[in-house]
Amino acid sequence: MKLYSYYRSSCSYRLRIALQLKGLEYDYIGVNLLNNEQLQPQYKSLNPLSLVPALEVSQGEILGQSVALLEWLEETHPLPPLLPSNTLLRARVRAVVNAIACDIQPLCNLSVTRYLHEQHQLAEQDVTQWQSQWMIRGFQAVEPVIAQNAQVFCFGDTPGMADLLLVPQVYNARRMQVDLTPFPYLTGVVDRCNELPAFMAAAPKNQPDTP
Amino acid sequence: MKLYSYYRSSCSYRLRIALQLKGLEYDYIGVNLLNNEQLQPQYKSLNPLSLVPALEVSQGEILGQSVALLEWLEETHPLPPLLPSNTLLRARVRAVVNAIACDIQPLCNLSVTRYLHEQHQLAEQDVTQWQSQWMIRGFQAVEPVIAQNAQVFCFGDTPGMADLLLVPQVYNARRMQVDLTPFPYLTGVVDRCNELPAFMAAAPKNQPDTP
Repeated sequence: MKLYSYYRSSCSYRLRIALQLKGLEYDYIGVNLLNNEQLQPQYKSLNPLSLVPALEVSQGEILGQSVALLEWLEETHPLPPLLPSNTLLRARVRAVVNAIACDIQPLCNLSVTRYLHEQHQLAEQDVTQWQSQWMIRGFQAVEPVIAQNAQVFCFGDTPGMADLLLVPQVYNARRMQVDLTPFPYLTGVVDRCNELPAFMAAAPKNQPDTP
Repeated sequence: MKLYSYYRSSCSYRLRIALQLKGLEYDYIGVNLLNNEQLQPQYKSLNPLSLVPALEVSQGEILGQSVALLEWLEETHPLPPLLPSNTLLRARVRAVVNAIACDIQPLCNLSVTRYLHEQHQLAEQDVTQWQSQWMIRGFQAVEPVIAQNAQVFCFGDTPGMADLLLVPQVYNARRMQVDLTPFPYLTGVVDRCNELPAFMAAAPKNQPDTP
């Protein structure tokens, strides 16, 4: 498989963790979002969604959207599982996945903050404030769900799909110096994840395109 | 089942279509987002995510996040299917689902536009421009995928999960008078969906809390 990724893209980071947890090998192709490489015709012809990550799963078959890719990985490479087998629990895991993938990340990503800065002349501190507040609102929704379970990881004693989403989002929050003291359960889970080899191998600091 | 919904919430609308397509009965409980009813302690104690839709699937078991709920419905009530059986096709459907659920809707919703207006003093026309441009960018990613298939619905001759996401998003775009002439495939699919009884029954104009 070939992974199109940017070292600091949180959506790429999710997928890298999943590939590592499932023990799958892949070739890494860096796509520099700062230089808008994802918008170039060459990349767009591969992935019309013009985003990272994308995964070439077989010759010429390229799939996009990180959450769709996590579900594809789970269906085609079921071990170790990233979702529980019980349907109610699966729904609870996916609710946390979507709370991060829909209600936090899209509001904080580079194309949005660039647009706020360039089109609406928001100052850098206002853009940071914008990102922080969507992260905090989102974490306020997720923290009680994780606290209610109070397990090693979000939903049990092995890492799963919710953890894959949470770790990159908290990485971003820490990079932006968001105060995470109100979220001890969520940060506890992240700290335990970050001690695992799969999470270390997937971390932004350890990628081929890390500067 | 009890559905917590707001007639004009596009995330609620997705779930209503799915419930209708699968022929499932439910009690409708209106949650008025304009009055911030979703933030009231009574609702928050039911659904800590403080969003609509939520679905009480059995006594006291309340699930949130529309895409997680669509997956739960598909797993627990598989007929008629909303996803194809082939794993590659499932990934392509879910990529469109996430292109709308992550890259369009969250940027255009009420809490975001309110924040832009109240915190950053964006004028009404700038907020409309903000919403329009995220819809257009998102539709530009989705249109070639649908065009490539060129079928009755997004991915075949029966409506599926991608159609459930597309119809409410195009409803919003039309309400905001976004120019959709560059998207003939996407609007063609939506117009065909809107002729089906399940989509009509789920439409914002036909809900118990429609003013």
